[in-house]
Amino acid sequence: MFVTIQQLVERIGGGVKQGDAAVSVTGVEGIERAGPGQLSFIAHKKYSPHLKTTNASAVIVPDSEEFWSAATEDSPVLIAHSQPYYAFLLALRIFHPEDTGIKPGIDPRASIGENVGIAPGVHIGQNAVVEDRAEIGAESCILPGCYVGRGAKIGSETTIGPNVSVMHDCELGNRVRVHPGTVIGADGFGYVQQGGVHHKIPQVGKVVIEDDVEIGACVCIDRATMGETRIKKGTKIDNLVQIAHNVQVGEHTIIVSQVGISGSTKVGKNVVLAGQAGLVGHIEIGDGAIVAAQSGVANSIPANMKVLGSPARELGREKRIHVLIGKLPEMAKRIKELENRLAELEDRTE
Amino acid sequence: MFVTIQQLVERIGGGVKQGDAAVSVTGVEGIERAGPGQLSFIAHKKYSPHLKTTNASAVIVPDSEEFWSAATEDSPVLIAHSQPYYAFLLALRIFHPEDTGIKPGIDPRASIGENVGIAPGVHIGQNAVVEDRAEIGAESCILPGCYVGRGAKIGSETTIGPNVSVMHDCELGNRVRVHPGTVIGADGFGYVQQGGVHHKIPQVGKVVIEDDVEIGACVCIDRATMGETRIKKGTKIDNLVQIAHNVQVGEHTIIVSQVGISGSTKVGKNVVLAGQAGLVGHIEIGDGAIVAAQSGVANSIPANMKVLGSPARELGREKRIHVLIGKLPEMAKRIKELENRLAELEDRTE
Amino acid sequence: MFVTIQQLVERIGGGVKQGDAAVSVTGVEGIERAGPGQLSFIAHKKYSPHLKTTNASAVIVPDSEEFWSAATEDSPVLIAHSQPYYAFLLALRIFHPEDTGIKPGIDPRASIGENVGIAPGVHIGQNAVVEDRAEIGAESCILPGCYVGRGAKIGSETTIGPNVSVMHDCELGNRVRVHPGTVIGADGFGYVQQGGVHHKIPQVGKVVIEDDVEIGACVCIDRATMGETRIKKGTKIDNLVQIAHNVQVGEHTIIVSQVGISGSTKVGKNVVLAGQAGLVGHIEIGDGAIVAAQSGVANSIPANMKVLGSPARELGREKRIHVLIGKLPEMAKRIKELENRLAELEDRTE
Repeated sequence: MFVTIQQLVERIGGGVKQGDAAVSVTGVEGIERAGPGQLSFIAHKKYSPHLKTTNASAVIVPDSEEFWSAATEDSPVLIAHSQPYYAFLLALRIFHPEDTGIKPGIDPRASIGENVGIAPGVHIGQNAVVEDRAEIGAESCILPGCYVGRGAKIGSETTIGPNVSVMHDCELGNRVRVHPGTVIGADGFGYVQQGGVHHKIPQVGKVVIEDDVEIGACVCIDRATMGETRIKKGTKIDNLVQIAHNVQVGEHTIIVSQVGISGSTKVGKNVVLAGQAGLVGHIEIGDGAIVAAQSGVANSIPANMKVLGSPARELGREKRIHVLIGKLPEMAKRIKELENRLAELEDRTE
Repeated sequence: MFVTIQQLVERIGGGVKQGDAAVSVTGVEGIERAGPGQLSFIAHKKYSPHLKTTNASAVIVPDSEEFWSAATEDSPVLIAHSQPYYAFLLALRIFHPEDTGIKPGIDPRASIGENVGIAPGVHIGQNAVVEDRAEIGAESCILPGCYVGRGAKIGSETTIGPNVSVMHDCELGNRVRVHPGTVIGADGFGYVQQGGVHHKIPQVGKVVIEDDVEIGACVCIDRATMGETRIKKGTKIDNLVQIAHNVQVGEHTIIVSQVGISGSTKVGKNVVLAGQAGLVGHIEIGDGAIVAAQSGVANSIPANMKVLGSPARELGREKRIHVLIGKLPEMAKRIKELENRLAELEDRTE
Repeated sequence: MFVTIQQLVERIGGGVKQGDAAVSVTGVEGIERAGPGQLSFIAHKKYSPHLKTTNASAVIVPDSEEFWSAATEDSPVLIAHSQPYYAFLLALRIFHPEDTGIKPGIDPRASIGENVGIAPGVHIGQNAVVEDRAEIGAESCILPGCYVGRGAKIGSETTIGPNVSVMHDCELGNRVRVHPGTVIGADGFGYVQQGGVHHKIPQVGKVVIEDDVEIGACVCIDRATMGETRIKKGTKIDNLVQIAHNVQVGEHTIIVSQVGISGSTKVGKNVVLAGQAGLVGHIEIGDGAIVAAQSGVANSIPANMKVLGSPARELGREKRIHVLIGKLPEMAKRIKELENRLAELEDRTE
């Protein structure tokens, strides 16, 4: 596909700051690997020197001269844009239109239970199992090997699988994507100890996943004991994340790989939980809060606070503490010296 | 379903301390969400004030007046019980009797190998694969998409799946539950380095899961190199847990989500391993020990000891250490001040 | 199977240092559990005393007298070998020749798309799905319930599954093993935030797994945003590991369970990443580096460096720091004492 810079700008926005808008590009690539005929981008100043060396034919740059002052007349065509990374994403979509090769229709090897509701345009792949009373919304794809339990509801334009398990009565919204191997609605981990034995608490609640949520591979989101575990609109969850029973996650939150959230904890909207962070149960993480990687959060966090460490503390202070921990050998030496000097002084002044 | 308080007390125990035992309830709910016609419970004193405000029709309370002194004559019916949480669990089972909708029988889309033993009342779902010489005990359920390898043995009233893999020769006891996506009996992670290459050590042992064990979703329990990896009776394992080859886990132990246990480690009975804790290989965790969340355990732990931290230390001491780590900036300042004051004093007394 | 010590030595190397080479053994076992008729080994001096007590009929020992000076004339036959653990591995393979019971052929319940290339000797199990244009190399096994996406390429003598998902266009080399539940080629976790919403960056790259790589159960290796995520020859990956988009892992590296590697990070060859370690994105781990368990690596690491801790520091220094952290209560007391003594001295010398 040939697209001229002029055509591109009409679709992704921005303006040509240098070079010939009639030049055409055929694909996209990162600034270090891009070759002739390719479009690239820079979003940070530290990449500006690449403008002198890149083989790209065109580069999207931030809309501020300081980013492209390094450019020479041999530099590629420059497209200035207020959001260069977002513009690049739009260009990526132009050159790589999604084509999953999936066509509407129910594969004869799929198992469809009784009283299942299937809207128009749905694809159900080989060996998928859709149990009684489940509902699948328009243009959704249930990929091979998926399991959709009794009474589960899948919205429209949602894709799950392959090999995903959505257990009974759980609900997924519209435009939800669930990557392979993920389990939605397994029983929460709840027992009452009595007579030295752990008695299982029936987990009679469900999971609700709202619209536009994306869930990675091998993620576990447990059903509520009673009521619901809920992931709100637009939230994105990476691989191998654990979300326990009765957790609530707000809108547009980012949960990075291998995070664990314990039971009944409420995570706000626009929160970031970085990789391998762990949250205890029954706490609240305020809107806009950021939990750094590997942090262990044992207490509620107010809105917009950034925390780090295990146990987690305010980010700036914890960074200072990490520096001081790194200096503990010197600190120990200074204490020893103080003791020696003080003892000498005490002797001298007796 | 209408159940009178009188009927309830006959089934779950306890005694009516206030209100009319002829009142009936139709369901259960948490104290904050319970409405008219619902039964709830409190187990801790901090929830006692809810007795004044809850809309529940009846509440199970601990068998001690201090818990219900907050009640007024407008409060719901009070059922005093020595184990209110356990009593609530029993009530939950009354109002939510398990009904999986699963009926005995082998789905025609299941694959059954040669010389497979299938006891009466077994359910084998769509696309499940049961390989040669496997045995499935009475009333067990192999849900859709499960794989049961050659010679594997599944006990009675055990449920696995969907999409669970139980590899060849592994053994599951009676009343075991395995949630979706879990893998039992993959090869242990063992190599010998020779000539710069990692040579695989054949993993010829198996996994044995004893009676009444519950295993969460996406859990990995590796087969032994030789001999067996064993999870003993009544132990409960949460999602995304890693249990390496030749590990032994004792009876009635709790292993919370994302814990990792390295090879050949022995975990005692009634142990608690909290979320994201990691144990190195070839150590022993004594009976009744508690390992706090995110701890890293590099040495054996005696019975009943509680540990925290990475590296893990005795809980009480480590909590003090965590407080002191939080005060390191002040500690550094105090050392600096001591140095200044001491230098001044040294000057003065020269 | 009876094998004489003489026959064994001819196949695994080493030499008989004590006892009768005509003695035969019928199996292998660890030194503490080995009984009559069994072969065992010791590789560390601390196990030498077992030579006096073991019931094994023969023991492989290191090729140095100090290891077997504890032996008596009642001790088992001793085979001295320069690499006793490797020799034991070879013996293990003799007594446990791999027999998966899997025969070439495509099960009628497998789904094979259009223009799929299937080399001779391939096994494709029940309910496996191989999509259009995929290629499966000679003697490879696609076990039941596996999904192989459009255009994916699987090399020769490679085994995947059961219930593994290899997504479209991903490539696996020869003699690769992928254990159950693993997902190769799910979308990388990439979004651009714009207008309070996370816009998905199309993930149009792929995953390349080179020859002789082994991948555990429930591992997630994400496809690249553009280009490729690559795992090089001979690397071994344990269960529940997360490898993000565009990561490169060098040859013969060991990645232990529950490790997480963030996007675009480059891990060298012969590296060891121990259990639950986490690596941020866009860093480089030099060849031969070792990252200890639970470490959090936020910066690049030079070749052969060993690091520990979160944040990770040089191993030796971090071990001293861990000791000092353990002594913080005493350190705080010493500072308090210094302050008291200094105040007293200041009073005295005023």
